[in-house]
Amino acid sequence: MVTSRDVAQLAGVSQMTVSRVLQGSDKVAPATRERVLAAMKEVGYRPHAAARTMRTRRTSTVGVVVADITNPFYPQLLEAVGAALDAAGQRMVLWNAPDPGGSSALQALDEGIVDGLVFTTVTEGSEQLAEAVRRGDPILLLHRGLDSLECDQVTTDNLNGGRAVADYLVTTGHTRIGYLQGPEQTSTARHRERGFRDRLAELGRPLADELTRQAGFAHDRARSAMRELLTQDDPPTAVFCANDLTALGAVDAAVSLGRRVPEDVWVIGYDDIALAAWDSYDITTVRQPIADMARAAVRLLLERIDDRSLPPRKELFPSELVIRSSTANTPAQPENRRPTEAPVHSGIPCVRTLSSQPQDRGL
Amino acid sequence: MVTSRDVAQLAGVSQMTVSRVLQGSDKVAPATRERVLAAMKEVGYRPHAAARTMRTRRTSTVGVVVADITNPFYPQLLEAVGAALDAAGQRMVLWNAPDPGGSSALQALDEGIVDGLVFTTVTEGSEQLAEAVRRGDPILLLHRGLDSLECDQVTTDNLNGGRAVADYLVTTGHTRIGYLQGPEQTSTARHRERGFRDRLAELGRPLADELTRQAGFAHDRARSAMRELLTQDDPPTAVFCANDLTALGAVDAAVSLGRRVPEDVWVIGYDDIALAAWDSYDITTVRQPIADMARAAVRLLLERIDDRSLPPRKELFPSELVIRSSTANTPAQPENRRPTEAPVHSGIPCVRTLSSQPQDRGL
Repeated sequence: MVTSRDVAQLAGVSQMTVSRVLQGSDKVAPATRERVLAAMKEVGYRPHAAARTMRTRRTSTVGVVVADITNPFYPQLLEAVGAALDAAGQRMVLWNAPDPGGSSALQALDEGIVDGLVFTTVTEGSEQLAEAVRRGDPILLLHRGLDSLECDQVTTDNLNGGRAVADYLVTTGHTRIGYLQGPEQTSTARHRERGFRDRLAELGRPLADELTRQAGFAHDRARSAMRELLTQDDPPTAVFCANDLTALGAVDAAVSLGRRVPEDVWVIGYDDIALAAWDSYDITTVRQPIADMARAAVRLLLERIDDRSLPPRKELFPSELVIRSSTANTPAQPENRRPTEAPVHSGIPCVRTLSSQPQDRGL
Repeated sequence: MVTSRDVAQLAGVSQMTVSRVLQGSDKVAPATRERVLAAMKEVGYRPHAAARTMRTRRTSTVGVVVADITNPFYPQLLEAVGAALDAAGQRMVLWNAPDPGGSSALQALDEGIVDGLVFTTVTEGSEQLAEAVRRGDPILLLHRGLDSLECDQVTTDNLNGGRAVADYLVTTGHTRIGYLQGPEQTSTARHRERGFRDRLAELGRPLADELTRQAGFAHDRARSAMRELLTQDDPPTAVFCANDLTALGAVDAAVSLGRRVPEDVWVIGYDDIALAAWDSYDITTVRQPIADMARAAVRLLLERIDDRSLPPRKELFPSELVIRSSTANTPAQPENRRPTEAPVHSGIPCVRTLSSQPQDRGL
């Protein structure tokens, strides 16, 4: 971070003089004042931030920025981050920002209202955020990352998560495989799709355009897209969804059409939100270790608040395929399944032993 | 609110003298200083708050306090409050506070970081909140109210919502009626239960203790409680749940036991969260007009920020029974129901025309 020392060096004055200029003291000659102000501008010196670092007492408050609080994944993530902060004696303040760049949160950081910021829904293109990172402000990206930002980032292995789903569906004999995409400007959607698509191609089952739809990480859009797929002449026998919210919409589309899951179509989500395990859905999904990610994020951010000179660190958590009754129809646990007497769909083997297989592969 | 004028009057000095004491000026005689400090203490004068009101520029930021962000009702409410604030040119900052008194948010109000606070999950017993209200701080209770606090409150008619459900279930012929309660320290749970219980008694069908369980506004607890009710020798034919999250748990309990909703048991929720209308649940519920409540809350709070002398105002919104397929099995809309060929449960008439009846009654 730029300090008053940098300003003093460039202007050829003492730090005391810089401090006097900041205080509006009349002990500084006009020409010197001009020189100091010009130097401040040139090096990008911000007295607010400087004042903050000079304070002996921190606010012990961390800000968290989220863009889509009605996606149940984020309340769960926020709850986990709140618990981790609480355990570290820190308070949490949230911004549910339509602006993913979180300009209001960045301003709060600038004014010393919070000591650092966690961004959970970052997308490309926020110049203000990039500028704050370049200045060395304590900023961490959680869940969604950005290669272009040189800051601490805690994410899961979305690429291998997508690959694991491709392996699972091809191994279980599916040939008509569909995909409900997430927004392209998010790293999570991009990496999950790339892993899924590349692995399917490697396995000789390239993803067909007519079985792919954009669902925007939204339940209603996913429901519409899935209804389109299911009412085609030759519908998919399995559909991978870019997140759990999308998968819930896909299941509801099937329900609305009187189709059975998994007998008529398999549905797979991503995240493992609490809802995914509820009996009415019980969907197979790729689990993100939310609590572990939250604890890592809080640890890294608090370390950075203590020492801004640390190099940027990236922690990548493994993801894990969790198999439930939206895919393999395992009769071993009748209490955890929706009641159905229908036979397993012809052409798709009933998989009972796969639940441990993906973990064995280290995903 | 207490001002420096009150302090000056009690101490028998000018406001300028009070100001000098606050600034630590040495132009005030020690005896006078003591008298001013004693007067400040006596009238409860807080220089922070005073400084805030003296500022020409507001923060244009409103704080919102919530205690249970993983209940999908609250993200929806927060989204609506955020939209209403956005339309009014205000920013929103959130506290997801395990402490329902929101001490951290109250401190932010005190320090002028926010202009006012909306409490969405207030419970009895926060002395700090009561004290802030007594001082006239801009504080509004939304969704949950408290009779003991003399401040602006925006709630729905939970009492009549509970009564409407009692009317509906008795009118449709149920005699084994169950109830999953919410936490007693919340106004919403208390009022919904009182309305339901009183009306059932008036109709000659008093609520039976053996069909009543505490479910704590939580999915897993509701699921366990509902499984207890359903595995009794003489299970209920209909269960009213204190909120939608509880009702989702109740439906999942039925699914886990292979019972059908509504053929084996009717389930009714409260709130009308988005999930309630999703095909896999599609539950009958009592709707709270979330967007209208959020707009009213923002309007009242901004008015109070402008003029703290306004009398406390209470806005009570009507609630509305919304009938879906977890109760009346209406064959008119096959696409919106879960697929089932089972006959309607004997003893419970299939109700097709009730969907407009409760609205006609003005609920």
